[in-house]
Amino acid sequence: MNGSMSGDLAAIEATAVTYLTAFNREDVAGILATYADDGILMAPGRQSSVGKAQLEKVYPGVFERIDFNMAYEIKEVVQTCANWAFVRSATTGTETIKATGKVSSSTYEELFLLRKSADGVWNIARYCTTKTS
Amino acid sequence: MNGSMSGDLAAIEATAVTYLTAFNREDVAGILATYADDGILMAPGRQSSVGKAQLEKVYPGVFERIDFNMAYEIKEVVQTCANWAFVRSATTGTETIKATGKVSSSTYEELFLLRKSADGVWNIARYCTTKTS
Repeated sequence: MNGSMSGDLAAIEATAVTYLTAFNREDVAGILATYADDGILMAPGRQSSVGKAQLEKVYPGVFERIDFNMAYEIKEVVQTCANWAFVRSATTGTETIKATGKVSSSTYEELFLLRKSADGVWNIARYCTTKTS
Repeated sequence: MNGSMSGDLAAIEATAVTYLTAFNREDVAGILATYADDGILMAPGRQSSVGKAQLEKVYPGVFERIDFNMAYEIKEVVQTCANWAFVRSATTGTETIKATGKVSSSTYEELFLLRKSADGVWNIARYCTTKTS
C-alpha cells in the first residue's frame, strides 16, 4: 500500500464510524450523508434498500419501531485499491421496542464496502449487517 | 474496466455460484474451497468465523441442525480493481429444522468480497449474509 492509500485509511474508518454513531442516535440525515447515491443497505428483516430514495424511507421506519443503544468495535479497515475499501465492525448493546418498552440484548456484525467519490469523499457503496445474537 | 478485468467477471461470479450451490447441497469441502485461507464468514445467529480453521468447524454445525433448500439470484458482479471484486445476491427458499421437521420459508441477501489469489483464482475474502425474512 503506498503513502496516499495509507493516508486514506483514517478517512475510510471515519465514514464507517460516522455511520455507526449516526445510526445509534437515530440521525437519518447523518446516516444518509455517508452513503453514495447508488448505495445499498442489506439488513435483517427486510429486502435490501437500493439507492438514496429507498434509503431515505427505510431508516425512519426502523427508528419509529426500535431504539438502539449500541457500542461499536472496528475490526479491520482495508483499502483494496485507489477508490475502494472495506471496513468490518461489530456492534453490541440493547434494543428497545418503542411500542412495548421491551428491551433485549443484541449483537450485529457489519461489512461496509466504500468507494471514493470524484471529489475525494469515502462513501458507503454497499453495506451488509447481520444479527449475530 | 479493461479487457482483462471484464474477462474476470465470469470467474468472479462462478466463485459465488459455487459457494451458493455447495451450501445448498451441504457440501462443506465445496464451500471451503471457495474461501481464501484468511476468509471470514459473517452470518446470522453466531459470531463471525475467521480463517479456514474456524470455517471448517462452523458449517458442519449449521448443516447438522438445518436443511436448506434455497434458490439464488445473482444481483450484481463488480470487479473493483485487478485483484478485488464483489458479488451481491439473494436467496429464497425453505429451511427445515432437522430435529423437529419444522419447515419455514426464508430469504437471505449476501455480499461477497472476493480477492484474486497469486495463482489467479478468485476466492471469498469476506462474506456477509443477512436474513431478510
